[in-house]
Amino acid sequence: MSLSHLFDPDGIAVIGASKTPGKLGNDAMTNIESYDGDVYPVNPSSSGTVYGYEFVDSVHDVEADLALCCVPGPVLPEVIEECGEAGIGAAVIFAGGFAEVDADGEQLERTITDLADEYDITLLGPNTAGYILPDLDLYGSFVPRIREVESGNVGILAQSGGVGVTASFQLEREGYGVSAMFGLGNRANTGFAELIPELDADPNTDAIALHIEGTEDFEGFLEACENAETPIVAFKVGESDVGEFVQSHTAAPDHDNETYERALSTRGVTMVSSLTELIDASRALADSPVPDGQNVGVVTAQAGPGIIVADALKQEGIEFPDLTDATQETVDDLLQGITYTENPVDTGRPMPEFGEVVEAVARDENVDIVIVYEIYEDSLGYPVEELESLTDDIDKPVLFTIAGPNHALEEERRAMEDIGVPTFQSPQRGADAVAALVDSISEEREESDLSVTSSQ
Amino acid sequence: MSLSHLFDPDGIAVIGASKTPGKLGNDAMTNIESYDGDVYPVNPSSSGTVYGYEFVDSVHDVEADLALCCVPGPVLPEVIEECGEAGIGAAVIFAGGFAEVDADGEQLERTITDLADEYDITLLGPNTAGYILPDLDLYGSFVPRIREVESGNVGILAQSGGVGVTASFQLEREGYGVSAMFGLGNRANTGFAELIPELDADPNTDAIALHIEGTEDFEGFLEACENAETPIVAFKVGESDVGEFVQSHTAAPDHDNETYERALSTRGVTMVSSLTELIDASRALADSPVPDGQNVGVVTAQAGPGIIVADALKQEGIEFPDLTDATQETVDDLLQGITYTENPVDTGRPMPEFGEVVEAVARDENVDIVIVYEIYEDSLGYPVEELESLTDDIDKPVLFTIAGPNHALEEERRAMEDIGVPTFQSPQRGADAVAALVDSISEEREESDLSVTSSQ
Repeated sequence: MSLSHLFDPDGIAVIGASKTPGKLGNDAMTNIESYDGDVYPVNPSSSGTVYGYEFVDSVHDVEADLALCCVPGPVLPEVIEECGEAGIGAAVIFAGGFAEVDADGEQLERTITDLADEYDITLLGPNTAGYILPDLDLYGSFVPRIREVESGNVGILAQSGGVGVTASFQLEREGYGVSAMFGLGNRANTGFAELIPELDADPNTDAIALHIEGTEDFEGFLEACENAETPIVAFKVGESDVGEFVQSHTAAPDHDNETYERALSTRGVTMVSSLTELIDASRALADSPVPDGQNVGVVTAQAGPGIIVADALKQEGIEFPDLTDATQETVDDLLQGITYTENPVDTGRPMPEFGEVVEAVARDENVDIVIVYEIYEDSLGYPVEELESLTDDIDKPVLFTIAGPNHALEEERRAMEDIGVPTFQSPQRGADAVAALVDSISEEREESDLSVTSSQ
Repeated sequence: MSLSHLFDPDGIAVIGASKTPGKLGNDAMTNIESYDGDVYPVNPSSSGTVYGYEFVDSVHDVEADLALCCVPGPVLPEVIEECGEAGIGAAVIFAGGFAEVDADGEQLERTITDLADEYDITLLGPNTAGYILPDLDLYGSFVPRIREVESGNVGILAQSGGVGVTASFQLEREGYGVSAMFGLGNRANTGFAELIPELDADPNTDAIALHIEGTEDFEGFLEACENAETPIVAFKVGESDVGEFVQSHTAAPDHDNETYERALSTRGVTMVSSLTELIDASRALADSPVPDGQNVGVVTAQAGPGIIVADALKQEGIEFPDLTDATQETVDDLLQGITYTENPVDTGRPMPEFGEVVEAVARDENVDIVIVYEIYEDSLGYPVEELESLTDDIDKPVLFTIAGPNHALEEERRAMEDIGVPTFQSPQRGADAVAALVDSISEEREESDLSVTSSQ
């Protein structure tokens, strides 16, 4: 089974396409019309065109690799068989009502999975909101306006399509995008184990973000994580007992979180505990060099928020190394009469020399990761120039926590992102991103004998 | 000492006002010029005008109640004395270099505090970014563009001006405002104990948000909390050991967090652990009726994010009551064939009946608080009409967690806020807001004998 029909289809059939706004088969057409390739709305009950594409009666009339199935569950065995006969290599099944519902649904899911396997069809779903590949203008989803999500360098694999959509829209709202978002749904024959290697190999994906409810193919999943070279961040839901609700959703087995946490951590996966942390940790890992160690330097232009950052980092077990004598001297020279110039370094207010202070701390050999906090002031701006020469020269993560009137700092915030300084919108989010970087190079992976696999 | 000169000054002197952009005395002028009253730039070394106001040589030449002191620490004893002689009743001191620095600074702070007490002057600071009262267009701060923060119904008392500014700008960025923001700084003679009663009495303030590093006047602080009728939310930093950094900031004593947590909780204060939670919890309490109990109903249009909300709530110890038979029947009728119709209720997708489902759950006598999750779809919108008749009729908090393309949902999100349904931007933030509501009516207050006060 090749996933290329999903990632680079030559022709797309929308089965159950509709002219009626608000219907699934219409919403899917509004998204897929951005695709630069042949699109075939398939519906024997419709004629004429929808969004400029002419209806066809059957998949036998099309030249397509991929089918978006906008039809209800009971007709799917027939649809999948026709897709197979027509040579379609991948199908997205939006409908629910399968293994997540009852024994009949489970049987139906087995039927379509067997058919898909027989015809060598990659199935995404059933019970999914679909997937998007913004770089290809490929939006294989029924979710209205999902086309507004732009290209980025974080690839999302979400067990729940709704969660993948929510995360994608949050990234869009905050000015970012995704390289890919897949809603896995019931994972009939395509799940984490199959898609992680694809995103790992994708040059547009610099970090992989996972939303996990639970998977039967635990060993395959872990192996894929272990083999990936791209940094992976995971948010496993189910810290509390929500097993029944989860089971009714994507038919996931009710593994406890501790098992996942241990098994994934030992394979170098960075674990987080909310969707926002998943987004932020993924951005930090995607946009930063791998740190050499876990020593964090904190530079703040305002003491109060800097204390919040320092407090949050300490709660994660992170300590702040002493600066070298040479750095301390430089910082003291720059900050004469300022109250607190050790690490964390507090400049009291933004000042023209702020960039130099950041640079001194970042160049310190005792410091592996730098986190900066500064409320934006027009007359000083952010130290973009200093940061540019800095990130050109050193190979350390430098993160910036921003605050201020949003539209005022928008431009310089982007300028910093462009030179490899990811920015974060609150003290806690900045601290969480640093904690993820520290976690990403923890020693657990090397120390473990990975024996947890066999216990599954 | 009356605080009215701070809250409703008749004439404002800006001491150390400057024509030079980027200087503190100029930044303060850019903010205060929005004030609809007499403003006097005071500077014997300057002549002519700044932003249309004519310079005067001395505070003796002005008719003002309030002075914004944009001058360095060493000249402040003289300045405060002159203010006293000129009949000024309140002064904001931006400069640092006092008790937070060393013994000399402590002595200087004692000198100006004694002078202020002698002349009956309310001192805000020293070492503060100032304060804002958007309803009066009064922005007594040097922070550039702080005037962009609009009116709202949350009043912020931040020990750190920088934190108060950060929180205010975050509220502005997310479409809200503040009724007041005070940066307390070193709290020479005005701190939590003095300002909480003022915000409690302020008709524009529906919730009070506190950022605390530590206060000497612990008993006065607790008494003010206990007497307040307005809901109070508090974020105490220092969960880890950041005492030295804190001490160097606002000269705060290093009380442990547990002491604060216990003492404040027993006085009905809702404790949170990040700045974003402080904002969200305050908004939830400001905009919602007081719940009758702690039973939460969850309604979601997408299972995956709904599970995240449910999981986060369960981690806070919150359980979901069974719906009554009548509600269950209504919900089952509305959601025929849907997988999970118990509490949490999952409709699978947004649907025309979604508002009716929310209404059924909200009207259930077993439910005290409702949290809704729905990804926005144009063709359906949000159920504003149903929510309006609902909130007119029942007296329960109904919270809405929003997701989707931001500009698309902006309008309906505001429509929901206007009818008393606060909205939140991520599953975790929605869940945290509900947890704050639950926490706000915990029984601790009644059960305690408040003996913790005497142990201080």
